[in-house]
Amino acid sequence: MDDRHITTDLADGILTITLNRPERLNAFTGTMSRELGQAFCRADEDDAVRVVLVTGAGRGFCAGADISGGADAFADGAVFNAAERESGAARSFILDIHECRKPSIAAINGPAVGVGITMALPMDIRIASTEARFGFVFARRGLVPEAGSAWFLPRLVGLPQALRWCLSGGVFGAEEALRGGLVSEVVAPEALLPAARAIAREIADNTAPVALALTRQMLWRFGSAPDPRELLGIDYALSRELGAGPDVKEGVAAFLGKRRPEFPGRVSRDMPAAWRRPG
Amino acid sequence: MDDRHITTDLADGILTITLNRPERLNAFTGTMSRELGQAFCRADEDDAVRVVLVTGAGRGFCAGADISGGADAFADGAVFNAAERESGAARSFILDIHECRKPSIAAINGPAVGVGITMALPMDIRIASTEARFGFVFARRGLVPEAGSAWFLPRLVGLPQALRWCLSGGVFGAEEALRGGLVSEVVAPEALLPAARAIAREIADNTAPVALALTRQMLWRFGSAPDPRELLGIDYALSRELGAGPDVKEGVAAFLGKRRPEFPGRVSRDMPAAWRRPG
Amino acid sequence: MDDRHITTDLADGILTITLNRPERLNAFTGTMSRELGQAFCRADEDDAVRVVLVTGAGRGFCAGADISGGADAFADGAVFNAAERESGAARSFILDIHECRKPSIAAINGPAVGVGITMALPMDIRIASTEARFGFVFARRGLVPEAGSAWFLPRLVGLPQALRWCLSGGVFGAEEALRGGLVSEVVAPEALLPAARAIAREIADNTAPVALALTRQMLWRFGSAPDPRELLGIDYALSRELGAGPDVKEGVAAFLGKRRPEFPGRVSRDMPAAWRRPG
Repeated sequence: MDDRHITTDLADGILTITLNRPERLNAFTGTMSRELGQAFCRADEDDAVRVVLVTGAGRGFCAGADISGGADAFADGAVFNAAERESGAARSFILDIHECRKPSIAAINGPAVGVGITMALPMDIRIASTEARFGFVFARRGLVPEAGSAWFLPRLVGLPQALRWCLSGGVFGAEEALRGGLVSEVVAPEALLPAARAIAREIADNTAPVALALTRQMLWRFGSAPDPRELLGIDYALSRELGAGPDVKEGVAAFLGKRRPEFPGRVSRDMPAAWRRPG
Repeated sequence: MDDRHITTDLADGILTITLNRPERLNAFTGTMSRELGQAFCRADEDDAVRVVLVTGAGRGFCAGADISGGADAFADGAVFNAAERESGAARSFILDIHECRKPSIAAINGPAVGVGITMALPMDIRIASTEARFGFVFARRGLVPEAGSAWFLPRLVGLPQALRWCLSGGVFGAEEALRGGLVSEVVAPEALLPAARAIAREIADNTAPVALALTRQMLWRFGSAPDPRELLGIDYALSRELGAGPDVKEGVAAFLGKRRPEFPGRVSRDMPAAWRRPG
Repeated sequence: MDDRHITTDLADGILTITLNRPERLNAFTGTMSRELGQAFCRADEDDAVRVVLVTGAGRGFCAGADISGGADAFADGAVFNAAERESGAARSFILDIHECRKPSIAAINGPAVGVGITMALPMDIRIASTEARFGFVFARRGLVPEAGSAWFLPRLVGLPQALRWCLSGGVFGAEEALRGGLVSEVVAPEALLPAARAIAREIADNTAPVALALTRQMLWRFGSAPDPRELLGIDYALSRELGAGPDVKEGVAAFLGKRRPEFPGRVSRDMPAAWRRPG
């Protein structure tokens, strides 16, 4: 790969994506946007990837959009649009994260401000080091919450907390993030990656890839649907189709035999006919 | 009644439904599915029932789908479909719970795993004994969250907690369920039924049946609606219609007279014209 | 202004609205409904108003609908309809609060019961004094949750807590409101207005008026949307349009210069073309 502003590493089913501009606290660029989107698309398709883990190189997670060029950084949406202009893509990298069939974990090791935190909202699990700092600072810059965060944030932390953080635009620490539900765990800096990897391992070692892909998409999608009726038809059809297949046979046999399951199903070829991706 | 896998008991306005296969930790069957649906339909129609209380006989609440037949239990959806095949019903028992005009309380006395916990999600209040254990174990068996739980669970505990429990598929105890918002109270085993009955009594003794039926349906339905405008029209029309009726006259008179109200309205015949059930 | 049941005071960008029938714990009337709606409409249009603060005169916040006339208070919806009948308005004052382009803070100083608390739900931030009392008492009077509260309350406190409060209809204190997420802070009575003003100041002094107006509307609207795709198109267009404008130039320059920003944009004339209000 020719990644310039991220690095990727795949080991034992865990794809680690590291935001990699440490000299600038990994400030966000159009290049980073495109590379993140591509990395999540590869993770979506590659059966060797079971879980995606995202962290930052050096002291920062991502200090927000790179405004080292000064007040023109946002003119014509420059910082956000570089990737789209280069690639011709009409699609936000946020959707690549949101729709990925592999679960993702953000291990927030330092400042995560503006797009530096909104990029972590479509991920499934967020944990932080005690060194992390957070800020939905948009209104203080004259901007609005971007990257879909007006949709994601209220779902994750509730509307009152989302309003409070976004209306004031202040920066806050890891303890407030934990109390507010933005992260589910805060650990010492040196314990962060081990903790994230332990969560990834628990998921990768125990679950069926196809079932996991469906589970994450079903929760995000129907967790926001107005009515349960459509889902009740879909989950019934999925249960029938999966229930007749080899993964469930293996899952039940492993459970009854008190051994670790070895699921044969693969996301790239075995997604059930009863499930259609949105869009 | 000819119930085989549940028992029911009506006393002082509280219908207690007991899952009753104690020798198998009340493992779920097609028969139990059908009987639960029928019991909630009777509760919906019977004015003598003010609140429904669901618990389990013996050590368990419901240990999940009965897989004592081995790995074929889910083939062709056998365990879930027995009831539908027997009865010809095209309707999930989950909708019977969800749409019931009487509020329901789950008193979770022991293991509640898989469908053993998803069946409790459409109920209004969940409390647990310290002996309770919970697990959204679907992905570990190769299955997806069923019984509409991808819709219900994020509404009850928030999306981050729902993702965490369903992506890992692990089993957890009553304290974690309390912290995560899955249950609102944890008490000693011998205090569980008294606590559940005390909640039921507070509701039954103080509220108007018709108002209560509307309240539970309005909160579930409009708590998930995209916009408040439709509701503002409906609750205004309901307030006008109810405000001119005998229940409000009695409710205000009892409040001003500092006495317990005796509401004349009955769910079976007095639901306001301004309210239509979904579906 | 000719307000009779409220008073208003504008100072340093903060519009303080005081519910003003202290001899009746500020019990709600049709006149109060109309005056509240008008005050929020003026706040929406007046660039001098940055934040709205609502509190009650005397010992109460708002003790609910005025039923001093006895059991006929709700007949023909009298208490709620007076304003509409007088003014010919077809619009609830709740929508005036909900759609206002200035954020609002409820400083709940005493009893807030029935419409006395549901009126505070469309506001953005709620804090309370230790003297506050709350009650969603509708079902005890034979009524349903009104003023759109079946939509607002589950969004603010989650569905389980909303069901518990509305199904029982009981009255509860400030600590329970804090634990349940109905208010974000509880302070001593004499500290209430200073605390509310400090929050208002932090917002008013640091944020761009246009960005703030968009932020509050985006969070309320897309926090309840079924899907993030519509928002991703809208927030991208807003970011481009705002990013090319003078507020962002000032916001970035002030941030880089470590000084307080002086945003030139005004809500009355500078809302971006990419945003359309609902309705």
